[in-house]
Amino acid sequence: MGGNAAESAAGGKNAGDERVHLRVPLPQPRPFLDTFRANLKETFFPDDPFRAVVRERGAGRRAAAALRYFFPFLEWAPAYTLGTFKSDLISGITIASLAIPQGISYAKLANLPPILGLYSSFVPPLVYAMMGSSRDLAVGTVAVASLLISSMLGAEVSPTDNPALYLHLAFTATFFAGVFQASLGLLRLGFIVDFLSHAAIVGFMGGAATVVCLQQLKGMLGLEHFTTSTDLVSVMRSVFSQTHQWRWESVVLGSGFLFFLIITRYFSKRQPRLFWISAAAPLTSVILGSLLVYFTKAENHGIQVIGYLKKGLNPLSVTNLDFTPPYMMLAVKTGIITGVIALAEGIAVGRSFAMFKNYHIDGNKEMIAIGTMNILGSFTSCYLTTGPFSRSAVNYNAGCKTAMSNVIMSLAVMITLLFLTPLFHYTPLVVLSAIIMSAMLGLIDFPGAVHLWHVDKVDFCVCAGAYLGVVFGSVEMGLVVAVAISVLRVLLFVARPRTTVLGNVPDTTMYRRMDQYTTARTVPGVLVLRVDSPIYFANSSYLRERISRWIDDEEERTGAKGETGVQYVVLDMGAVGGIDTSGTSMLDELKKNLDRRGIQVVLANPGTEIMKKLDSSKVLELIGHEWIFPTVGEAVSECDFVLHSHKPGNAAAVHENIV
Amino acid sequence: MGGNAAESAAGGKNAGDERVHLRVPLPQPRPFLDTFRANLKETFFPDDPFRAVVRERGAGRRAAAALRYFFPFLEWAPAYTLGTFKSDLISGITIASLAIPQGISYAKLANLPPILGLYSSFVPPLVYAMMGSSRDLAVGTVAVASLLISSMLGAEVSPTDNPALYLHLAFTATFFAGVFQASLGLLRLGFIVDFLSHAAIVGFMGGAATVVCLQQLKGMLGLEHFTTSTDLVSVMRSVFSQTHQWRWESVVLGSGFLFFLIITRYFSKRQPRLFWISAAAPLTSVILGSLLVYFTKAENHGIQVIGYLKKGLNPLSVTNLDFTPPYMMLAVKTGIITGVIALAEGIAVGRSFAMFKNYHIDGNKEMIAIGTMNILGSFTSCYLTTGPFSRSAVNYNAGCKTAMSNVIMSLAVMITLLFLTPLFHYTPLVVLSAIIMSAMLGLIDFPGAVHLWHVDKVDFCVCAGAYLGVVFGSVEMGLVVAVAISVLRVLLFVARPRTTVLGNVPDTTMYRRMDQYTTARTVPGVLVLRVDSPIYFANSSYLRERISRWIDDEEERTGAKGETGVQYVVLDMGAVGGIDTSGTSMLDELKKNLDRRGIQVVLANPGTEIMKKLDSSKVLELIGHEWIFPTVGEAVSECDFVLHSHKPGNAAAVHENIV
Repeated sequence: MGGNAAESAAGGKNAGDERVHLRVPLPQPRPFLDTFRANLKETFFPDDPFRAVVRERGAGRRAAAALRYFFPFLEWAPAYTLGTFKSDLISGITIASLAIPQGISYAKLANLPPILGLYSSFVPPLVYAMMGSSRDLAVGTVAVASLLISSMLGAEVSPTDNPALYLHLAFTATFFAGVFQASLGLLRLGFIVDFLSHAAIVGFMGGAATVVCLQQLKGMLGLEHFTTSTDLVSVMRSVFSQTHQWRWESVVLGSGFLFFLIITRYFSKRQPRLFWISAAAPLTSVILGSLLVYFTKAENHGIQVIGYLKKGLNPLSVTNLDFTPPYMMLAVKTGIITGVIALAEGIAVGRSFAMFKNYHIDGNKEMIAIGTMNILGSFTSCYLTTGPFSRSAVNYNAGCKTAMSNVIMSLAVMITLLFLTPLFHYTPLVVLSAIIMSAMLGLIDFPGAVHLWHVDKVDFCVCAGAYLGVVFGSVEMGLVVAVAISVLRVLLFVARPRTTVLGNVPDTTMYRRMDQYTTARTVPGVLVLRVDSPIYFANSSYLRERISRWIDDEEERTGAKGETGVQYVVLDMGAVGGIDTSGTSMLDELKKNLDRRGIQVVLANPGTEIMKKLDSSKVLELIGHEWIFPTVGEAVSECDFVLHSHKPGNAAAVHENIV
Repeated sequence: MGGNAAESAAGGKNAGDERVHLRVPLPQPRPFLDTFRANLKETFFPDDPFRAVVRERGAGRRAAAALRYFFPFLEWAPAYTLGTFKSDLISGITIASLAIPQGISYAKLANLPPILGLYSSFVPPLVYAMMGSSRDLAVGTVAVASLLISSMLGAEVSPTDNPALYLHLAFTATFFAGVFQASLGLLRLGFIVDFLSHAAIVGFMGGAATVVCLQQLKGMLGLEHFTTSTDLVSVMRSVFSQTHQWRWESVVLGSGFLFFLIITRYFSKRQPRLFWISAAAPLTSVILGSLLVYFTKAENHGIQVIGYLKKGLNPLSVTNLDFTPPYMMLAVKTGIITGVIALAEGIAVGRSFAMFKNYHIDGNKEMIAIGTMNILGSFTSCYLTTGPFSRSAVNYNAGCKTAMSNVIMSLAVMITLLFLTPLFHYTPLVVLSAIIMSAMLGLIDFPGAVHLWHVDKVDFCVCAGAYLGVVFGSVEMGLVVAVAISVLRVLLFVARPRTTVLGNVPDTTMYRRMDQYTTARTVPGVLVLRVDSPIYFANSSYLRERISRWIDDEEERTGAKGETGVQYVVLDMGAVGGIDTSGTSMLDELKKNLDRRGIQVVLANPGTEIMKKLDSSKVLELIGHEWIFPTVGEAVSECDFVLHSHKPGNAAAVHENIV
């Protein structure tokens, strides 16, 4: 019947003499495996990462190219110059001065021994310098992941009652985080990180920063006991139930340093040239605070200090990894969640700076680098590291040129570890709290949230959901809320696609949305509808009913005015990117239904995939290839031609007649 | 700056004299609440269900219309005629003759007392007759839900050791299933059922049918002990580990009846007029089987029989509902899962027959009807019911006209309950197994699966995943696998959108996909790209990199041939149905990046929503309203005009020059 229909249509075209139109081509059948391979490649290797390797001739050159692919420092190291080194030296020392106090602070936040913060700024940056492809990323621990470690591990193992187990679990979690990160990269699943949208990250970071600031109230107020929960309600209850324990010395010292840090931040923000002021401020605070405590013996007056820090480089911790059942699952869970969060931050930071400097970052390769750095870190007494935004921004502003700045930072930390740790004995904890708080305030992106509200309300909901989830629930809950809203939005886009009526823009052959182009006019007897999403199982019932409703509405409108009723429904398939079997069945039913009402279904501008599926599901035969046009304009002019060369009536029957 | 750009563009247009093009209009700002309300309505009330009520004038008439909305029988009852009644009587008796043996069989499958199958065919049909809007749905219990109840409840409570608790939990699960179904309808969340795609249902039903058939091996082989697992491996192990227990009498009797049932099915399928043969076959088998056992005293020779069935109508079971903690969650879980499955079948059946007879089914209203029928059922000793496909098909073929056929069936079952239950004493269980097996064989839609393979490979994977999940795992696992693959497909569609290069179709102003329209040709210096999905967080990084790669590829191609490099990138936004803040940032970055390479970004045919978001995110200003065109053709002709009226070079700079 399909063949006949096509022939008879050609006949019909001849009868209407010069009305010959371009057929929508039916794609050549391609072997299933070819399509499958192409899809697989587009899904997992969209960036064609091995292009450079494949291009080389000879096994040796290829091996060298592959080595260069996995160890990007081989790329830049040979051309390294003294000028570049000078820039990297300055930025390396700058970030080291930030890394040392921040490292100690975040380790405290994770309820880990402060020295771990220094260890973690020694080994991982070296690994990253060899494997990472970003030139601006500065490696180190981050507040959010530190908080997550303390809240997730702390929920099952007390860091005060069982510090050894807690420490070992932190290493194990870091190990699993690294394995997870590296596997994502190796399996080319990096796009999973994209599901944490920018909006989700703004809300999540803001919430985490709020929560971390709240935790600092412990240090700022000099409290000894504090809730292990992170939500606003528990923290506030904990703070206000022990007002008698507040230490004014601590409050005064803390507020003073916080004010100092915020002021320096403010200056540096207004004058990017003065970046070093805010970069050096934390170390200055630590030095000033330590001197103050040392000379006033304030540690005896309610000011808690860091205390003894062991001298020496990272001890090995391979044997500390805990792979035995009761706690291993906890470590795996913590590792996966903190790993994803850390990865999202690291990748986002790497990409942003790569964009500024106009070079390319391979997300999957970055994941392998970050993952490897955490695996090796977990063997050498480091906990979870990534590329924190604040530190990388300082690195960038300080003029770093290559990952060598990480090596410089690492060396500076090494010197500190070997010789300078005793100097931190008198550093007051309250200064660390002030450092954390001032860093966290920078993470709350209020203008960003306002921008989201203005541009996209759903994104704002994602952001607000993540924020509220973190602040009133837990960090994990915020994450789940944000991802759930984001995914729901995608599903809802497909489940409730937009359908719009198109009209002719006067003096053109263009058909555009009538709600957008107010000058567009309908063609009597022809209803042009546009579907704005793929036709999938999730929307096929909806679309069937929505299209019927459009037709009913139009018939009602024209009926009231005494105009010609709907004789043709032209479906603009231009924006339909895909169709599945539920979709083809829907079209099948629609065709049969409208046939019964004497309305002809016409398709305009279907893509290759749609044509292929229509063909294989026999819907093409049913509708007739002659009723499928490459543009809406041609479709309408054909309908119009048939309508006006004959009396209105059953359009399908009319078309039969002219053949 | 935006204002200036627009003005200067207008100047540029004047310089090029008659080259005036239609501006893409920027939508009027609409109050947020208006948009929000419209979106909410489109999401939850796409079918405008209360149109009939709102149209009426006066409170009384509106109340009557609302009553008619919730109780559709008020619609047809007043016009009910004797002719219609005759048709309904015949079909009602026909489905009753099917309902009685099937009811008993499925109750056995659910490990519930057989009499419950009869109870469940008495009350729920009456409720549905009043509230349901389908004229063809025949209410009753279904095999899959019965199996699910036995496997889910049976996993925690043994039906043999603790029959009372098991029974009460079945009622409670039915109650929760009803509450869940009715709530879905009341909250207008009916579209959740659409996420069970046709492909998923084909696979799932096939798997469930296979599993149910496997379970019948117990009855067919006359085994007394049997595994409680439903997966293929456990069942096969259970069957072949007790070959010495197989009873040949049972096997012979069962195979005989199964053969008889399959033969009658076959005849009815070839001759739809003979539908009554297969409809009456189960009852005939029951009668023949019972007589056989009665006269041969076969119950003493290894043929198990139903035994004593209590006379009388449904006892109340409200007080049996179990709302106490340990088992309530189990009942809730079972209720929700079985409720969704039952709903999906009921809605699908209602919709299919409504389509055949060309009337309309309101999915959400159906859910309320099915939910209410289960809630009331759970109060009157019924377990989960819905509209099974096989029984509804018989109803339809028997010529039913209204839901009155359900009332007739219900009355026939009532008479059976009051007077005829003793007749089932000698009915052999093996006949029931044969009845279930023959019904299940009809549910395995092998040609359907082949069709899926031909039309859509992903749908086939969904189907196969559901089938294998059910057969080798459990019913729930099959469900989870199917829904997961389906949702993943939607997410992947958005995460990896298709981007294609468009070319000019010779002798037209059409721009079409070059991979589809082989005659299409590129325009030198202009790269036209089309994006086939909304630009969301999930694909914005991918799109940024993919677009860069298209440009690199094109530059490489033209470079090799010594042609003009890319000066303009025209993005066809026609198929971009939505954009979020990640998407607008992506365009922002793309614009800045390409500016640096001296390439001008041009947008063609963005929709209302896109224009609004581009405007509010200031990306419109950045790109310039004058670089946004309603069609690709106009965009390219403008680029071409600028290119050819000046030497090639930095396109953006050239454009500045002509101003």
